[in-house]
Amino acid sequence: MSEQNTASVEGALARLAAVIESRKVANGGDPEKSYVARLLHKGPDAFLKKIGEEATEVVMAAKDVDHGADKGKILYEVADLWFHSMIALSHYGLTPAEVVAELERREGTSGLEEKALRKAQERAAQEGAAKQ
Amino acid sequence: MSEQNTASVEGALARLAAVIESRKVANGGDPEKSYVARLLHKGPDAFLKKIGEEATEVVMAAKDVDHGADKGKILYEVADLWFHSMIALSHYGLTPAEVVAELERREGTSGLEEKALRKAQERAAQEGAAKQ
Amino acid sequence: MSEQNTASVEGALARLAAVIESRKVANGGDPEKSYVARLLHKGPDAFLKKIGEEATEVVMAAKDVDHGADKGKILYEVADLWFHSMIALSHYGLTPAEVVAELERREGTSGLEEKALRKAQERAAQEGAAKQ
Amino acid sequence: MSEQNTASVEGALARLAAVIESRKVANGGDPEKSYVARLLHKGPDAFLKKIGEEATEVVMAAKDVDHGADKGKILYEVADLWFHSMIALSHYGLTPAEVVAELERREGTSGLEEKALRKAQERAAQEGAAKQ
Repeated sequence: MSEQNTASVEGALARLAAVIESRKVANGGDPEKSYVARLLHKGPDAFLKKIGEEATEVVMAAKDVDHGADKGKILYEVADLWFHSMIALSHYGLTPAEVVAELERREGTSGLEEKALRKAQERAAQEGAAKQ
Repeated sequence: MSEQNTASVEGALARLAAVIESRKVANGGDPEKSYVARLLHKGPDAFLKKIGEEATEVVMAAKDVDHGADKGKILYEVADLWFHSMIALSHYGLTPAEVVAELERREGTSGLEEKALRKAQERAAQEGAAKQ
Repeated sequence: MSEQNTASVEGALARLAAVIESRKVANGGDPEKSYVARLLHKGPDAFLKKIGEEATEVVMAAKDVDHGADKGKILYEVADLWFHSMIALSHYGLTPAEVVAELERREGTSGLEEKALRKAQERAAQEGAAKQ
Repeated sequence: MSEQNTASVEGALARLAAVIESRKVANGGDPEKSYVARLLHKGPDAFLKKIGEEATEVVMAAKDVDHGADKGKILYEVADLWFHSMIALSHYGLTPAEVVAELERREGTSGLEEKALRKAQERAAQEGAAKQ
C-alpha cells in the first residue's frame, strides 16, 4: 500500500467515525431514516447486542472459509463487527484513533503482547493453584 | 486529528498487522514464547473463541461504564477485540486495510448504511410475513 | 420442589422439544406463521447467530442485575438462550435430555468439574510454557 | 423417554444445581480446588465471560458438524453452555427449574412463540419505519 493509500484508508476510518457522530439525534440524525441513528437512539443495549451478534457472524464466516467459502466473507463480517464497535465508541465519546493508540501503546511501551501475556500468566497462576 | 496523526494512526494498524504476521511459525514465531504465535499455531478455533470472548468483554465493559466505570475500560476491550480480529485476518491472509477499504466502499458507493439498511429491510419483510 | 413439580418441569422441557420438532417444515411447520419454523427453515446460520445474540443478552441482563435491576431479567434471557439452543439441538437431531445426560455423565463418572478442570489444567500448562 | 427417565433427567438438573450451590464459598466451596468455586468466587465477570465463550463454542461445533464432524460435539458444547448458565443462575439465586418454568409459562399462556414473535413484530415495525 502506498503512502497515499495509507492516508486515504485512514481517512476512511476517521470519516466513518465522523459520519456515525453526525447520526446522533443531537447532531440531526433521524432514527426513522438512518440505521445508525436508530441504534444510537435506542441506546447501548441495541448496539451492544449487535456486537455479540456480529462477533458470532465473524466466527461463522471463518468456519465457512475453513470449509471452502470465499474469504471475502470474513472481511465483510469483520467490517460489520468493527462498524458496530465504532457505533459503541461514538456513543461513549471515544474514537477508533484512541483504540489504535491503545494498541500502539501496548506495542510501543512493552511489546505488543504485554497485556495478553500478563493475563495469560495470571490465569495460569490461578489455574495452577486450582489444580491442587 | 492532524494529517500527521492520521498517518501515524494508520501506521500503527499496519505495523501491528506486520508484527502479527511475523509471529506465524512459518515466519519464525515461537508458540512457546509468544501469545500471538501460540494462537496462530493452535489454529482458528483458538482465536475465534477469543473473538467471542472479547466481544463479551466489550459488552461487560460498556455496561460497567453505563453504571459509572471509567470509559477507558471500553477502549481497552475494543482494542482487545480488534487485536484478536487482526490475528484472524492474518491467519486468513487478510489485512485491516482491507477491512477499512470494505467500510470505505460501503460509504463511497451507496452510503454508509447501505448494507445495514438492506439487511434490516430484508428482515422486516420476512418478519412482516411471519406476523400474519 | 416436590417430586410432582420435578416431573412437570421436566415434562415442560420434553414438551418444548416436541413442539419445536413439530415446527420443522417436514413436520408441517409453516415458516410464514411460526418463528421457530422460520429459524429452522432458514437453517443453521439463522439460529446459531441467535445463540450468540442471546448469550450477549444474558450477559447484559446480569450486568443490569448487578446494578439493581430485577433478577427476573436473567431468567428471561437464560430462557431465551436455552430456547434457541433447543432449536439448534432439534435441527441436529439432538434433545435436551441428551444434554442433561452429558452433564449427568460428567457428574457421575468423574465429578462434575472433571472436564472444566482438565481444560483449565491444559491451559495452565500451555500458558506456563508460554511464560518463559 | 419413559416417565422414569424423565424424572431422572430432571433429577440430574436439580442435582447439578445443588452441587453448584454447594461450591459457593459460603457453603464450604474451595476456590483453590474447585473450578465452580473459583468462578463463583471471582464473581460475575468470570462466569459471564465464559457464557460468551461457550456460546461461541456451540456455534463453532455446529459449523464443524455442518461440515462432517460428529454431532456429539454439539451436545458437549451445549452442555458447557448450560453448565455455565447454571453457575450464573446459582450466583443470582435462581434455578434451572425457574428457567424451565418460564419456558413453560410462554408455552402455556400464549403459545411457545409468543415472546419471540412479539419481539420480531416490534422489530419489523421499527424497521419498516426506518425504510422510508
